[in-house]
Amino acid sequence: MKKIIILPPFISPLAPDLIAKVEKASGDYDVVDYTQTDYTVDDLRSAEIIFGWSSKVEEALGQENQIKWIQVWMAGIDQLPLDKIAENGTYLTTASGANATIIAQQIMAMMLIQARRFDQKIANQSQHVWEFPEGMTEITNKKVLLLGTGNIGRVLTKYLTGFDMTVIGVNTTGHDVDFLSETHAIADYLDIVDEVDYLVNALPLTEATRNLIDADCFLAMSEDAFYINFGRGKTTDQDALVQALQDGEIAGAMLDVFADEPLDPKNPLWDMDNVIISPHSAGQSDYYNPRVIDIFLENFQEYTKNGQVNRNCVDYNKGY
Amino acid sequence: MKKIIILPPFISPLAPDLIAKVEKASGDYDVVDYTQTDYTVDDLRSAEIIFGWSSKVEEALGQENQIKWIQVWMAGIDQLPLDKIAENGTYLTTASGANATIIAQQIMAMMLIQARRFDQKIANQSQHVWEFPEGMTEITNKKVLLLGTGNIGRVLTKYLTGFDMTVIGVNTTGHDVDFLSETHAIADYLDIVDEVDYLVNALPLTEATRNLIDADCFLAMSEDAFYINFGRGKTTDQDALVQALQDGEIAGAMLDVFADEPLDPKNPLWDMDNVIISPHSAGQSDYYNPRVIDIFLENFQEYTKNGQVNRNCVDYNKGY
Repeated sequence: MKKIIILPPFISPLAPDLIAKVEKASGDYDVVDYTQTDYTVDDLRSAEIIFGWSSKVEEALGQENQIKWIQVWMAGIDQLPLDKIAENGTYLTTASGANATIIAQQIMAMMLIQARRFDQKIANQSQHVWEFPEGMTEITNKKVLLLGTGNIGRVLTKYLTGFDMTVIGVNTTGHDVDFLSETHAIADYLDIVDEVDYLVNALPLTEATRNLIDADCFLAMSEDAFYINFGRGKTTDQDALVQALQDGEIAGAMLDVFADEPLDPKNPLWDMDNVIISPHSAGQSDYYNPRVIDIFLENFQEYTKNGQVNRNCVDYNKGY
Repeated sequence: MKKIIILPPFISPLAPDLIAKVEKASGDYDVVDYTQTDYTVDDLRSAEIIFGWSSKVEEALGQENQIKWIQVWMAGIDQLPLDKIAENGTYLTTASGANATIIAQQIMAMMLIQARRFDQKIANQSQHVWEFPEGMTEITNKKVLLLGTGNIGRVLTKYLTGFDMTVIGVNTTGHDVDFLSETHAIADYLDIVDEVDYLVNALPLTEATRNLIDADCFLAMSEDAFYINFGRGKTTDQDALVQALQDGEIAGAMLDVFADEPLDPKNPLWDMDNVIISPHSAGQSDYYNPRVIDIFLENFQEYTKNGQVNRNCVDYNKGY
């Protein structure tokens, strides 16, 4: 019998009603739930569809196998052996988009914390101190440069424009996207980064984006501007960021991702009062698993009908 | 010569360019700037227009005076001697609306801090701790009951619906407002408070609203719901709130105002991990003074033309 194997999500356990939802839609496929139980490489080799990822999946791909499609639970795939999956002739679909509202809300949280100085208010609360922090302001009318115009950018732009902010975007070629009035090619981003109050990094990690945000960028940015990173840590030269913050070249940073994670307890970023740190948690939400299930089921319907998967299907040449 | 007297704003000093803006529009009125210098009750008695408030204004009203219009810097007027101002035949206009975006952004900040557990992340950062807080979620699709459908409610509703949230409102009579699809009379609010995830209080303090939010309300609310107060502290029975939080009758509270301010350092609210405290600072922003100047100038134009003031003019019968 044809098999769909479900492996554990990485965010939180999979609720029984969500497994039931897959079973209900699975037609003549057998759904095998390995989210709570152990499994072998051989178990995986005989599956046509694998919903999830582990090192055993990589082993299974190295042997004779039936694997036609892998749906992973995560959005970022820079740590997956893409060549190996491609060589196997296997489709790979990601959870991209499932975390878009979550991450966009985390970015809004950080912008508003900084603007309303809740970092200081929360510290004051723990000391029972009734005191106005300095510099409380608003985000109204501020300008944002978005690096990466994908799903996160789309949702974030909706939120930001609701606050009467202006958003411009950067993507690979500067191609138009329907939710932004202005886009530029990534090669030109340094020419416009000086105009904005917030630089928001939502880039995937590729060879083109590695260390893209560097000392030149921070030097070009306004001294009153903030850097926000929710993409991948290694897209940023983190030492240059620390230096720019220490030298006052930018006003502050809100960071969810870092060059090495977890962030070293001795890293100077922890103690900077113009830095807000979140432990790579922007995707964590009880809304996440249900959304990935929906992505899988949409693809599954297409797969059983036409033998294809459309949504979030990785282009192995582009690497995302 | 006819005189406009400017008294100090309460938020931050008045920038010279803003004083210049008033002077430029003042026509045949003399603008007297007392924002940095001392003044007497007699100085005030001879003014036709006073932009600001102090106890000396109250004294001036008790004597013979020329005061036809007082524009105050604040939105809330529950501490002003309304009877005395009314008896003097003086218009009173408030800064209502000038703080709407500020307060709405502060409310969004608090909702998002709670949903993304930044209260814990900020505490963790101070300890250099890389750890996922429990219970990170989103505000997407949640439902809000807004007590008070004025300027703050209007801006807040715009923000909330941008996050795909549902907003219903309560005002004195349940009259329609153009930005909400559902409104109820305040007398009926207990019948609907059980439906919502957030109860947002943006009420002025009047005899009708004093201690309106009480034990009955918290008992009626869902155990998963949050109480947010940005109106006036005395609209809430604070002891009942503490009790409800301690008993788990509601999930938490975000508070900018309190029955007595500053909040007593011994008050149990400070240490509750499901409470976020802001020191009555929701109106603080560098955007504030420019907006109040705009309100004043709009009214001034009308006043010099028709002898009236329209925007934010207090109805002495209603008390707001």
